[in-house]
Amino acid sequence: MGMDLQELAAELRRFAAEREWERFHTPKNLAMALAGEVGELLAELQWLTPEESARVMADPEAGGRVRAELGDVFNYLVRLADALGVDLVEAGADKLRDSERRYDVATYRGRARKAPHT
Amino acid sequence: MGMDLQELAAELRRFAAEREWERFHTPKNLAMALAGEVGELLAELQWLTPEESARVMADPEAGGRVRAELGDVFNYLVRLADALGVDLVEAGADKLRDSERRYDVATYRGRARKAPHT
Amino acid sequence: MGMDLQELAAELRRFAAEREWERFHTPKNLAMALAGEVGELLAELQWLTPEESARVMADPEAGGRVRAELGDVFNYLVRLADALGVDLVEAGADKLRDSERRYDVATYRGRARKAPHT
Amino acid sequence: MGMDLQELAAELRRFAAEREWERFHTPKNLAMALAGEVGELLAELQWLTPEESARVMADPEAGGRVRAELGDVFNYLVRLADALGVDLVEAGADKLRDSERRYDVATYRGRARKAPHT
Repeated sequence: MGMDLQELAAELRRFAAEREWERFHTPKNLAMALAGEVGELLAELQWLTPEESARVMADPEAGGRVRAELGDVFNYLVRLADALGVDLVEAGADKLRDSERRYDVATYRGRARKAPHT
Repeated sequence: MGMDLQELAAELRRFAAEREWERFHTPKNLAMALAGEVGELLAELQWLTPEESARVMADPEAGGRVRAELGDVFNYLVRLADALGVDLVEAGADKLRDSERRYDVATYRGRARKAPHT
Repeated sequence: MGMDLQELAAELRRFAAEREWERFHTPKNLAMALAGEVGELLAELQWLTPEESARVMADPEAGGRVRAELGDVFNYLVRLADALGVDLVEAGADKLRDSERRYDVATYRGRARKAPHT
Repeated sequence: MGMDLQELAAELRRFAAEREWERFHTPKNLAMALAGEVGELLAELQWLTPEESARVMADPEAGGRVRAELGDVFNYLVRLADALGVDLVEAGADKLRDSERRYDVATYRGRARKAPHT
């Protein structure tokens, strides 16, 4: 009976409000905090080979740290989207539609190359 | 009629599979891609004051770019969590519980300072 | 009688070699480590206003942390450039020449806007 | 007859002053710009294997892009250090001394693990 995304956003908003942190939580500051947490996530994976990174959750200690960093990254992203009034799932779905147009299967199958901007 | 988070994750998985991009989508590579998109988000906000950043969505052009970058960031985060088998909302909710323990209201009201690690 | 940039690069190379860390120090991994350290630098500045950030070195404690993070960022950047055989000062000077062409003074005075890519 | 680091810092300072960009160049904003450029650097390396990343300079096109991104990253780091009054080579050398204490050769040879904070 966990939360859903909207409930988590509301809980994070309440958490900040109780501590009177709203004045710190401008989009600029939250974006920096998000980037800081992404940096911690990278630090967990930086010395692993890609193959080792695919098995990282099998190690309870490293896997627990990675899961915790993902939680931190997600919470700041949810706070930021909430502060900006953006629906993350809708914004993500719109970008996916875009990518489907830009990266047609015939041209990009097996090729991780950037599509030209149009 | 919108998607939810699970549906978006499934769509992103299908999108990658159709293009045979799974071999590129290791956790290490996806974390780098996530960080790259966060960098683009920062670039949209870097020269704004915190106050200007709070009004960025009122400008249709800049607001549209910020929303698109949030979509990119979210999609790579969802892909990464999917590749690792981590439930983002649960991971976020667990970290929120942690933060409630570490940042008691009486001590941290109005103060954006890091709690000591314990 | 401190070091210069070339001497620091050589010292960092020796430091890694003595620990047999060369196999970890691929450009991909070093770029991730660089991004991780930049994340720690952002974390030092994220809740400060731009004005407070301009005075951060006046606080011995916060200033010392910022200086240490700059050192970490610089060391990984120097290692990465060394691993790639790139001269940082030359690469920076070349980009500055580029920027002088793209951002002519008359058009961009007082305006922090991106020049269109050409 | 190229520049050295001090000359590059002075040139970048003049470049910003001529465009009256000093008010944008607070440490907070420059740190965000630095992180944005690091994101572009990561994007160049994200789909490469570590081994491919070690050969990236052999490809004139990809190598040129990587060198250009290193130049951008370096320029913002130099601007930021200049704005803060920090000597990058000294700050880097101090951190290297630290690392030599924390990562003794006997314990850390061949092991890319973080030393405990002390």
